[in-house]
Amino acid sequence: MIVALAGGVGGSKLADGLYRRLAPDELSVIVNTGDDFQMYGLHISPDADTVLYTLAELANTETGWGIAGDTFETLRALGRYGEETWFQLGDRDFSTHILRTQRLGAGWKLTRVLESFTDALQVRARILPMSDDSIATVIRTATGELAFQDYFVRRHQSDDVVGLTYAGIEDATLGREVREAIEAAEAIILCPSNPVVSIGPILAVPGMRDLLRSATAPIIAVSPLVKGQALRDPADRMLAGLGREPSAAAIDELYSDFLDGIVIDRQDSVESERIAALSISVLTTDIIMRDIEGRERLAGEVLEFARNLAKAAGRASRREGSSG
Amino acid sequence: MIVALAGGVGGSKLADGLYRRLAPDELSVIVNTGDDFQMYGLHISPDADTVLYTLAELANTETGWGIAGDTFETLRALGRYGEETWFQLGDRDFSTHILRTQRLGAGWKLTRVLESFTDALQVRARILPMSDDSIATVIRTATGELAFQDYFVRRHQSDDVVGLTYAGIEDATLGREVREAIEAAEAIILCPSNPVVSIGPILAVPGMRDLLRSATAPIIAVSPLVKGQALRDPADRMLAGLGREPSAAAIDELYSDFLDGIVIDRQDSVESERIAALSISVLTTDIIMRDIEGRERLAGEVLEFARNLAKAAGRASRREGSSG
Repeated sequence: MIVALAGGVGGSKLADGLYRRLAPDELSVIVNTGDDFQMYGLHISPDADTVLYTLAELANTETGWGIAGDTFETLRALGRYGEETWFQLGDRDFSTHILRTQRLGAGWKLTRVLESFTDALQVRARILPMSDDSIATVIRTATGELAFQDYFVRRHQSDDVVGLTYAGIEDATLGREVREAIEAAEAIILCPSNPVVSIGPILAVPGMRDLLRSATAPIIAVSPLVKGQALRDPADRMLAGLGREPSAAAIDELYSDFLDGIVIDRQDSVESERIAALSISVLTTDIIMRDIEGRERLAGEVLEFARNLAKAAGRASRREGSSG
Repeated sequence: MIVALAGGVGGSKLADGLYRRLAPDELSVIVNTGDDFQMYGLHISPDADTVLYTLAELANTETGWGIAGDTFETLRALGRYGEETWFQLGDRDFSTHILRTQRLGAGWKLTRVLESFTDALQVRARILPMSDDSIATVIRTATGELAFQDYFVRRHQSDDVVGLTYAGIEDATLGREVREAIEAAEAIILCPSNPVVSIGPILAVPGMRDLLRSATAPIIAVSPLVKGQALRDPADRMLAGLGREPSAAAIDELYSDFLDGIVIDRQDSVESERIAALSISVLTTDIIMRDIEGRERLAGEVLEFARNLAKAAGRASRREGSSG
C-alpha cells in the first residue's frame, strides 16, 4: 500500500501518476478537507473532488477544477434567483455535491460518502478525507479574516496572507481509515500541493504528525515550488507572507520532523546541498507534470526513490525506539 | 383580488391566462403541494414550480413540466453515480430545488420560499402553497399503496386507482396567506386541474371547505374534462376508479357544497341541463387552451362569468347567515 497526501491540482496530478503506476487498490490518497464549504446549502469538498475526478478521468485539466466538458446551466439559473455565482460549479459537478449533502444528511461519514463515489466511478484507489470532522481553513490578512474560498476563489488570492488558522481542528480526530492506511503504508508521499493550505491542514489534524513520525514507511515530499515559484497557486506568496523563504528548503523545514526524502526540480539543484546538510535524502529531477506521461514518469521516480530509502541503513537508525 | 386554485399543467394555463388579464398583484394562485416529494435530498414541489415557470414565461409548454430548453447534465451525472433518474429534473430546474431545500432547511416556510422565487423572477402574482405543512398524496391500487410520483411518473399512471389518502392532512393547517386571500377575493376560480389529486388535496386541508362555503366571492370551477376525457392526465380514469362518472357533472358534485358556477365545454352542452338542475350556473364555451391567446380568452370569459354571478340575486340568498 502506498499513501499519498494531497490537496488540489498539483496533488491530484501526482496521485494520478501513482494510481496509473500501481496495481488496483494499492493507493490511498488522504485529502485536505480544510477548504470544504457550504454553498446553496450543499457540502462542497473541492480537493476531494479534484482527486476523485482526476482518478476517474473526468477532470477538466485546462481549468484545474471541475469536470471536463461540464456546462453551467444550474449556476446561471441560481444567478437568476439572485444568488452569488463566484464559485464555478458545473452541472455534472453539482450531482456530486447534491449526493454528498444528501448522504451526510442521512448520517454518513464523509469517508463513506467518498467511498461510494469511488465505487460508483470505478476508481480503484481510496480517497480518504483527513478527518470526518468539520475543519475550516481561515485566512488572516492585514485587514481581517477570510473564509478560505472567499480568499482563494472569490477574491482571486489577491490578499496578502499574514496568518491562518484551521477552525475546528482542536476537536477533530483522524479517521480510522487514515490511521490504518498510514500504519500499513510501504511509502508515504506528500504530493506537490500547497504546503500551507493543502498539506498544512492534513498535518494539523491532532495525531497526524505523531503518526507520521512513528511510521515505518519512508516519507517523501515532492516540492510544489520550482525556483521559488509555485506552479499554479499562491504557495510562494503565502510562504513569504508567513515569514518563510519560498523554496524547496523551506518545504523541507515544514516537514522536517518526519521527512526522509524530498524531490526537487533540476532547476533548484543548488538547493540540494542545503537540504542534504539536514540529513534528508534528495532526488533531483523534472517535477513539472505537463501531461499524463509526465505524471507517470514522476510517480515512477518517486516510488523508486521510496524503495531505495526503505533499504537505506540511515532510516533504520532514525527510527530507533519507534514501533517499526 | 382574484384567487385561483391550481395543480399542474391545466391549472397553470388558466392561471397564466388570468395573470395576463389582470393588473399586477391582483392574482393569488393557491397550489397543490400533495405531490411534493424528496429526491436526492432535495424538496421538489412539482405543481408550484409548474405555475411558477408558467407565469415567469419559462415553462416548457411541449412537455408540460420543467423549463423550456433545459438540459439534463446533472441528472445524467446522478445516474452515473447509480441513482434512479426516472423523475426528469433539468439543470436549470435543479436550481429551484436546491434553493428551496436550502431555504426550508434554514427554517423558511414554503410560502416564503415561493414568494422569494416570484420576487426574483419578477412574477407579479402570489403563488401560495395550500399549506406550509407536509402533506403527501398516497395512491391506493388493487395491489397496494404508491407514493404519488411513483404512480404518476415512475409507473406512468398505469395502475388502476381504487382510493387515495393525503398523509399528514389531519395535522396540516391552512396558511394565513391562503385564508386572507380567500377572504379578500372577488372571485375564486378552480382551475381545470385533476379534481382528485390536484384540487382534491387543496380542498382536503382542514378548514378549506368551510372557508370556501363562507366566502363572499363567487366560486367557479372550470371542468378539466371534455366529453368524459381529461386532456392530459388520468383524471377520467381516476374518477372512474373511485366510482364516479368521469363527467363535468361529476366535477360539479365534488364541489357542490361551495360552487356557484361551472364552465364546461361546448361539446358537453348536453350536460348543462343536468347541472342546471342542481342550481349551479353554467357557462358553456371552448375550454381547451391551445395557445396563449386561448388562455387569455378563457380567463376573460371566466372573469366575466364571475362578475355576472356576483351580481346575481341567487348568490346573496345562498349566502344568508354568512359573514358576507
